[in-house]
Amino acid sequence: MYRTHTCGALRISDVGQEVVLSGWAQTVRDKGYMLFIDLRDRYGVTQLLFNEDISSPELLEQARSVGREFVLQAKGKVAERASKNDKIPTGEVEIEVTELTILNASSVPPFTIDDDTDGGDDLRMKYRYLDLRRRPVQENIMFRSRLGIETRKHLADEGFLEIETPFLIKSTPEGARDFVVPSRMNPGQFYALPQSPQTFKQILMVSGFDKYFQIVKCFRDEDLRADRQPEFTQIDCEMAFVTQEDILNTFEGLTRHLFKALKGIDLPAFPRMTYDDAMRRFGSDKPDLRFGMEFTELNELAQHKGFKVFDSVELVVGINATGCAAYTRKQVDELTQWVQRPQIGAKGLVYVKYNEDGTFKSSVDKFFNTEDLKGWADKMGAQPGDLMLVLAGEADKTRKQLNELRLEMGRRLGLMKPGDFKPLWVVDFPLLEWDEETERFYAMHHPFTSPKKEDVARMLSGGHETMKSLRADAYDLVINGSEIGGGSIRIHDRKLQEKNFKLLGFTDEEAEAQFGFLMGAFEYGAPPHGGIAFGFDRLCAVMNGQSSIRDFIAFPKNNMGRDMMIDAPAPVHPEQLDELHLAQTKID
Amino acid sequence: MYRTHTCGALRISDVGQEVVLSGWAQTVRDKGYMLFIDLRDRYGVTQLLFNEDISSPELLEQARSVGREFVLQAKGKVAERASKNDKIPTGEVEIEVTELTILNASSVPPFTIDDDTDGGDDLRMKYRYLDLRRRPVQENIMFRSRLGIETRKHLADEGFLEIETPFLIKSTPEGARDFVVPSRMNPGQFYALPQSPQTFKQILMVSGFDKYFQIVKCFRDEDLRADRQPEFTQIDCEMAFVTQEDILNTFEGLTRHLFKALKGIDLPAFPRMTYDDAMRRFGSDKPDLRFGMEFTELNELAQHKGFKVFDSVELVVGINATGCAAYTRKQVDELTQWVQRPQIGAKGLVYVKYNEDGTFKSSVDKFFNTEDLKGWADKMGAQPGDLMLVLAGEADKTRKQLNELRLEMGRRLGLMKPGDFKPLWVVDFPLLEWDEETERFYAMHHPFTSPKKEDVARMLSGGHETMKSLRADAYDLVINGSEIGGGSIRIHDRKLQEKNFKLLGFTDEEAEAQFGFLMGAFEYGAPPHGGIAFGFDRLCAVMNGQSSIRDFIAFPKNNMGRDMMIDAPAPVHPEQLDELHLAQTKID
Repeated sequence: MYRTHTCGALRISDVGQEVVLSGWAQTVRDKGYMLFIDLRDRYGVTQLLFNEDISSPELLEQARSVGREFVLQAKGKVAERASKNDKIPTGEVEIEVTELTILNASSVPPFTIDDDTDGGDDLRMKYRYLDLRRRPVQENIMFRSRLGIETRKHLADEGFLEIETPFLIKSTPEGARDFVVPSRMNPGQFYALPQSPQTFKQILMVSGFDKYFQIVKCFRDEDLRADRQPEFTQIDCEMAFVTQEDILNTFEGLTRHLFKALKGIDLPAFPRMTYDDAMRRFGSDKPDLRFGMEFTELNELAQHKGFKVFDSVELVVGINATGCAAYTRKQVDELTQWVQRPQIGAKGLVYVKYNEDGTFKSSVDKFFNTEDLKGWADKMGAQPGDLMLVLAGEADKTRKQLNELRLEMGRRLGLMKPGDFKPLWVVDFPLLEWDEETERFYAMHHPFTSPKKEDVARMLSGGHETMKSLRADAYDLVINGSEIGGGSIRIHDRKLQEKNFKLLGFTDEEAEAQFGFLMGAFEYGAPPHGGIAFGFDRLCAVMNGQSSIRDFIAFPKNNMGRDMMIDAPAPVHPEQLDELHLAQTKID
Repeated sequence: MYRTHTCGALRISDVGQEVVLSGWAQTVRDKGYMLFIDLRDRYGVTQLLFNEDISSPELLEQARSVGREFVLQAKGKVAERASKNDKIPTGEVEIEVTELTILNASSVPPFTIDDDTDGGDDLRMKYRYLDLRRRPVQENIMFRSRLGIETRKHLADEGFLEIETPFLIKSTPEGARDFVVPSRMNPGQFYALPQSPQTFKQILMVSGFDKYFQIVKCFRDEDLRADRQPEFTQIDCEMAFVTQEDILNTFEGLTRHLFKALKGIDLPAFPRMTYDDAMRRFGSDKPDLRFGMEFTELNELAQHKGFKVFDSVELVVGINATGCAAYTRKQVDELTQWVQRPQIGAKGLVYVKYNEDGTFKSSVDKFFNTEDLKGWADKMGAQPGDLMLVLAGEADKTRKQLNELRLEMGRRLGLMKPGDFKPLWVVDFPLLEWDEETERFYAMHHPFTSPKKEDVARMLSGGHETMKSLRADAYDLVINGSEIGGGSIRIHDRKLQEKNFKLLGFTDEEAEAQFGFLMGAFEYGAPPHGGIAFGFDRLCAVMNGQSSIRDFIAFPKNNMGRDMMIDAPAPVHPEQLDELHLAQTKID
C-alpha cells in the first residue's frame, strides 16, 4: 500500500498517528540541521519534517537529494507544527519522517509548477502533463468532472436516459465542415464525425425513448478562431410530447440545479426576451443582463434638425453611461477611436455630457440646443452626471456596433461583476436567414427546426418575402452575455421537412440522399419533439467567470488544431493510405 | 401540455381522474359498438375505450381511422375495467376517451412491433427506429443507461474524476488498425481515432489526478467478426499510487455494486487464478466457473501402455461428464465429429464410460484394462454413471480443444445457468508473446504493461529465453467465461519502457516519434500507476445473460461496418477530398 492518507487529509486530531503519504515534492527547504519538504497531491499539501533529532544521517542525506517534482513515499508520525500555516487545512501538522522512498526522480521542470507560472502557452501545451499539475488547472478539471456527474444525476432523476449515438456517421453538406474518416472495408466511402447527434436524437424520439440526453463529443472542421476547438463537448438533450414551454422549464431546472450544487448560488428568474427585442434593446441575441445601459432609439428626436449625418441614416441610437459626464476630452476621443477600429467599424461617435450642473456639452452642440438634448436625456433616462453615447447608420450594423460599445462601457465601469449571474432565454428566433451574397436561405438554427405553429400555414403556402418573416420555436439560454445552450422544437412532419429542405436549396434527390432516413422515420409515427444542447466547455467557463474554454479541457488543441503534447496530427505510413485507396495530392 | 400522465402510470386509485395521455397505438380492436386502443409509450400500455354511450359518433369514427403506430393524444376519464388484465400494472383501468387528437399518422410498419418480431436482421437494422420501439430492445437500452449512471455514481463516490480525453489523436503502429482522419489545416497529416485512451490516462496519472475514469467510445478498424463493432464503449479507469491488489479490490467493488444495484444480485467471492493455472485447469484464460469439469492430465497413467496415439504426444488430458455414461454410441460418435470439426480441430476423441454397475466401456479397451481405467476414474474423480472424455496432442492446442469440448458439454448439460454469475480474476499473464511466424515478441496486454516487480531485473539484463518467461502485473476480470475487463500495472520508468519498446521491435527513433511524450513525462516525476478497462457493451450483455453486444447498442453497425439506417459510410463530394489534398486511387 502506497499511502494511508492523502496529502490533504491530516489534521491536529491525527497527531501521534503513524502514517504513510505519497506525492510530489513541491518545495524542499534545507535549514541545515533540519529540512522541510512540502508533499503535494491533488488533495492538498502536507509538510514533511526531517531533522537531526528524529532522522538518521542517511535519511537526512536522502532527503537532501530530493528535487522539485520528485515522487516520494514518506512514513512517519503526525506531529503538531511549531509554526502553523493557517492558509492550508493541513497547516497545523507535519510528518516527522522515519522512512523515505524516492518512487521516481524528476528532471527540473521547464516551468514552475505553481498557481502562477512562468511558462508560455506553447511550452505549457507541450508539457501539458506538468501544466495540469498546477492547482488552478487541476481545479478546473475537477470542476468539470463534478459538473458532469451533477448533470447526469439531475437528468437521470428527471427520467432522462443517456443513450450513446454513433461517432462514425455520414457527411452532410449542411452546417460546418465535417471531419471525414475513410472506410477501409468500403473503399471510396467515408464516415463523418458528428457535428452533433441531431438526427440520431430525433430518431430516438421517433423510437419512443421520450427523454434523451448525452454528454458527448462533437466535431467541426472549422478554421479555428480563438477559443474554438475542433472537438468540443455538448450536453445534448431531446424530449418528446413537449412544447417549448416544457423544455424551457426543464432546462431552467437543470441550470438552477447545477449552479446550486456546484457554486451554492440560487439563480435569479430566467426572463424571456424575443430575438427582435434583444436586437432592438441590446443589439445582440445574447445580451449581458448584469447591467442595464439599454439602447434608446433617437430617430424621432434627433433627425431633421439639420445634422446631416443623422438625417440620412436608418437608425440613431444611444446608450447612457451613468456617472461618466466627467470623462475628459482625451477619454472621449479614445472611446471614439475605439468604436472606429476596424473590428467595430463605426464611422464616428456622438457624445452628450449631461453635466452635474444641468448643462449639456456635446459633440453636436452646433445642431442641437439644450432643449433638444434634454429631450434625449429624458428619453434615455439620463441624469446629471451621465454621459450619452450615440451611434448612427444602417440599423443592423449600428446596433451591433453599439452592442460592442455597451459591453466595453460595462467592462470599463466594472458592471460585469464576477459572481453575479444573470440568465436569460432568448426566444422566437427567425426560422431562415436570407444571404444576399449567395442568394439563398440559411437555417438560423438548423434545418430540423420547426416554424412556430401559427407560421406553419404561411410557410407551406407563402412566397419569398413571407419566408423571411417566419419565426421559429427556437431558443437560446444566455448567461452573462454567453450563449450556453440553444435548441428548438423540431419538425416532425414529412411534408414540412421537405418544404424546409427545398427552401434551403436542397433538391429532392439531395434531401432524400442525406436525410431520407429521418423523413422516412417521420412516416411511421413521429411524435412532436424538441430539444436543446448546452456547450459543456462553455458552461464550465461561464460558471467560473472565465472566458477561455481551453482552460477547462484536459488536452486542448491549439489554433492550428494541433495537439502539441503528442504532436498530432502527423503523417501516416504510406501503406495506411494504400489500404484506404487514397493518395496524397500535391500540397502547395 | 401533451400529457398529464405516462401510459404506465395509472392505477385503480386514479379512477375518476380527468387525464391526458400521449403515445403510440399498439393495437386497435374494433368491436362495433365499442373500440379499444392500446396506447403505448416507454413506460407502459394503457387501454383507451371508445363506445357509443360515452363517445360521439364523430369520435368513434375518428378512432376507427387509427392504425398501428399512429401517434395519439387522448383526453378522458380513468375508469375501472370490466375485464381486467393482470399481466400489466395498468391492467385494472382504462380511459373513457372524450377527445382524441391524431398527432401523427403512420404507414404500416414493415415488421410487427412486438416482443417477437417477424422482421429479419437487415430490415430491422434499416428501420432501426422501429426496432428500437420493441420492448426487449427498449429494455436493453434503458438498462445500459442505468448501468452508465450507476457506474458513474459509484466511481465518483469513490473519488474518481471523469476526465475527457481527445478523440483526434495520433496513429500508432502498435495494436489494431486505426481509423484515420485527414487534417485539412495540416495538409498531408492525419489524426487517428483512439483505440483506447491508454496513453492519455497514464499522462493524467503523471499530472496527479490520481483516480481517473471515463465511459468512452473507442475505435478499431478491424475485420469485423460476429459481435465486434468498429466503435465500442469502455469504462476506462486508472489509479496512481496503487498495487495490483488495490486495483483488484477497487473494481471488485464496482462490479459488486453494479450487480447489486441493477440486478439485485450479491456476487459470490472473486477467486483469483494465475494465467498458467487457468490454461492448465480449463484450457482458457477466461474459464466459465459456473460449472466444474476441470481438466485432468493423464500422461502418467495413460502413456506407455501400448496405445501409440497417446505415447507420441505431449499431453493426454480429459474431463469427466457427470451422469453421461448412458450416452449412446450415436451420441458419442456425434461428439467425436463435433471435436473433429475444423473450428475445433481435434484428431479424435477417446471416451470411457464408467457404467452404473462399476464396469468400464471405452474406445480404448484394447489398450487399457479395467484397473487402468479405474485409475483414470480415480484421478478424474469420476463415479459410476459418468463419462470420461479424453483428448491427446500438442499441449496448447489440445487444451484449447478440450476447452471447447468442456463448454459444449456445459451447454448440453444445462450447466450454464442463466442468473448464475461466477466472477474470476485471472492474474499473472505473460508479459510478452513470441510469434514464430514474424519472429518477434508481441505485448500480451499492451506495450505499457509492467513486468512483475520480481521480474524487472531479469527483463533489464536477461536474454531471449528469459523474455519468454517474464510475468506481467496484468489481470482480467472474467464472468461466466466472458472477459469483461482487463488491465495492468504500467511501467512508469523511462528505461524500462525503452527496453520494452526495444523488445517489441521498435527502433529508438520509432519509439521516440510515437511515444516520446509519454517517456518524456516519465522523466518529470511519474508515480507508480495502473488501471483497467471494462467492455461496457459486453458488460451489459453478460449481466443480462445475453451473448450479442449489438442488442445493447442503440445504433450498431453490421459486419461490413455499415450503418444500414443512415446508409453510411458513403461517398463524399470531390471538393471535400480536394480540400484534404487527397485523391481516390483505383479500387479493384
